[in-house]
Amino acid sequence: MVGLPLAGVVVLDFSQFLAGPVAALRLADLGARVVKVERPVTGEIGRTLAFAGRWADEDTVSFHAMNRNKEAVVADLKDPGELELVRRLVARADVLIHNFRPGVMERLGLDYESVRALNPGLVYAAASGYGADGPWADRPGQDLLAQSVSALAWAGGGDRPVTVGLSLADHLMSCHLAEGVTALLVRKLRTGRGGLIETSLLEGMLDLQFERLTACLNPPATDPPPPDLFLPSALYATADGHLAIAPTRPKTLLRALRAPAGVEVGGVEQVGRWVAERLAVGRTADWVEMLGAAGVDCVPLRTLDEVIGSAEFAAVGMTQVVEREPAEPGGEPLRLTTTRSPIRIDGQVLRAGRSAPRLGAQGRLRDGADPLAAGPPIAQ
Amino acid sequence: MVGLPLAGVVVLDFSQFLAGPVAALRLADLGARVVKVERPVTGEIGRTLAFAGRWADEDTVSFHAMNRNKEAVVADLKDPGELELVRRLVARADVLIHNFRPGVMERLGLDYESVRALNPGLVYAAASGYGADGPWADRPGQDLLAQSVSALAWAGGGDRPVTVGLSLADHLMSCHLAEGVTALLVRKLRTGRGGLIETSLLEGMLDLQFERLTACLNPPATDPPPPDLFLPSALYATADGHLAIAPTRPKTLLRALRAPAGVEVGGVEQVGRWVAERLAVGRTADWVEMLGAAGVDCVPLRTLDEVIGSAEFAAVGMTQVVEREPAEPGGEPLRLTTTRSPIRIDGQVLRAGRSAPRLGAQGRLRDGADPLAAGPPIAQ
Repeated sequence: MVGLPLAGVVVLDFSQFLAGPVAALRLADLGARVVKVERPVTGEIGRTLAFAGRWADEDTVSFHAMNRNKEAVVADLKDPGELELVRRLVARADVLIHNFRPGVMERLGLDYESVRALNPGLVYAAASGYGADGPWADRPGQDLLAQSVSALAWAGGGDRPVTVGLSLADHLMSCHLAEGVTALLVRKLRTGRGGLIETSLLEGMLDLQFERLTACLNPPATDPPPPDLFLPSALYATADGHLAIAPTRPKTLLRALRAPAGVEVGGVEQVGRWVAERLAVGRTADWVEMLGAAGVDCVPLRTLDEVIGSAEFAAVGMTQVVEREPAEPGGEPLRLTTTRSPIRIDGQVLRAGRSAPRLGAQGRLRDGADPLAAGPPIAQ
Repeated sequence: MVGLPLAGVVVLDFSQFLAGPVAALRLADLGARVVKVERPVTGEIGRTLAFAGRWADEDTVSFHAMNRNKEAVVADLKDPGELELVRRLVARADVLIHNFRPGVMERLGLDYESVRALNPGLVYAAASGYGADGPWADRPGQDLLAQSVSALAWAGGGDRPVTVGLSLADHLMSCHLAEGVTALLVRKLRTGRGGLIETSLLEGMLDLQFERLTACLNPPATDPPPPDLFLPSALYATADGHLAIAPTRPKTLLRALRAPAGVEVGGVEQVGRWVAERLAVGRTADWVEMLGAAGVDCVPLRTLDEVIGSAEFAAVGMTQVVEREPAEPGGEPLRLTTTRSPIRIDGQVLRAGRSAPRLGAQGRLRDGADPLAAGPPIAQ
């Protein structure tokens, strides 16, 4: 590897909860130095929001997972002297990320227009729930609400709404934020100029549904639809679990299942019903073997424990252990197993091994902490 | 705007279906020139895979949505002479994207090691289903199978598996591909060297579940869990629809719903059951008004038609019209309404207005077409 792609890029991360911190994590995993700027005493709210039980060091497991491979300084943005120190830090950074509600950064004098005067090369990323304008601009962004208001729960086409049970809107926004920041770093290197990247939960949810939306936004095609050559991919219940089958020609699937002649005459819907009834009375492992032998691509639906125990999970090497030094000398370090970046660079997985920082791990600005002392940012 | 962030970057896109084409679209929307390299006669398979009815120009609506803002040349990779022309093109590009199965690019002499010798500055993106190694390396990537094999359907925690009904694994991979390419462009500008970025459907699905995985991969916390201060976000059925409520303090929600004293004593689970029963007997609009007045953040679950008709949808400006010139002079251009990039740069939405190219819109390489004649790629 020539070196991590974003080596030397300095990111100041003012964000909270999931989307902003995960965006910054994506940049960190690609080599950027990410410095969290947190309030005194409590720090980022994600440290204590209990999603998945509490870690011994008084940070949630989720916080650990999202904030590994970062540094942390403390500053009270409500104190004018400390705010001035923050401004001086911003003047020297490559990237700033925040997800405050509209108006907060303006009141602090840390909005894009203000800090651009201090640092014309700054890449400034602002994440929101529903965009900077419009009737919902002031609403706090919340994942399930963003999913619901954008009709994601109906995407499956059934008669009951379905929620995926994950912070999908936040997760996608973290990707778009990271991509926008990185693209502006390309421009910064070529022009010396920074820029503003904005995105929202709502825009990410609409982008996810671009096929549905494009189909809805245009009049139906006037020419007849093509014949249904494939049975669409679907999840089927079996006698002891579930089976997912990739899009398949009805004839191939029916032959593999030893269907009686004539089933395919009713078209793909009738074939689908027959397949569902047939699969319901056999065991998943037997179907996988039988269908696989006939060239039908299918997998058993796994639980998370089954995933973790699988050969594919081991092969893809998606985990890493991060270690946090003990608070007291002589204590035991904390070790946490978590995931890594989904990206490989030059054939290498990106692992860092560095844990989420303790609150103020790199000190408090008013006490002289300078997280950028390690080196200058890029291209200045 | 100083200029689009990736202006001048030249991307050769050999990919098919969804993830690769959408990754290339993300780069195009940020300013890159994306040239699809397609086989003669049929072109990319996505042109004719019928998801959502057929467009008059014999490309699917989904193809139009994913491939707007691109150019297209034709080359037969099985013809040695044309393959040599493709190699010469690759030698002059900034980025190559493909999602062929392992072995295909090697046989063509277009694998990373081979083309790196031709073009040391090339950023090479390879997308797969389950990674380049491991027991499933040769399996074709398929969205629902990648979701199923990674336990996504159980993420909601219910007793029935839930599928989101969208190409979520492909969509996320498109984000990771675009991010990896863009990060390597940063490195290319600083070092002159290209690089290899790889990702897979499986890695993206595991990354999406990083919180669940991290919770499962570590022993449970030994200290007692903190008290449940919030009712988690949830979707509730009402008398005439569904309502999504953000995480709320039980007391706030119960007061807003005029609950009798004592309901909160049973903890958040009992509160949740009571809330569900109460909401089931009233109309969504009335609940939104009542809860909103009490400061509880909630939204009605919308259908896609309701989304398209909403003020927030209009405010976020997520659509654009792309236009394809008529095939014959004097004909009517095709106009298609589709979505735009979820990213804003320098306060501007990124709209291009250019439709998906017809097959071979920029010609066939063996007939002298040179899609890179417009200008040199970056940093060479």
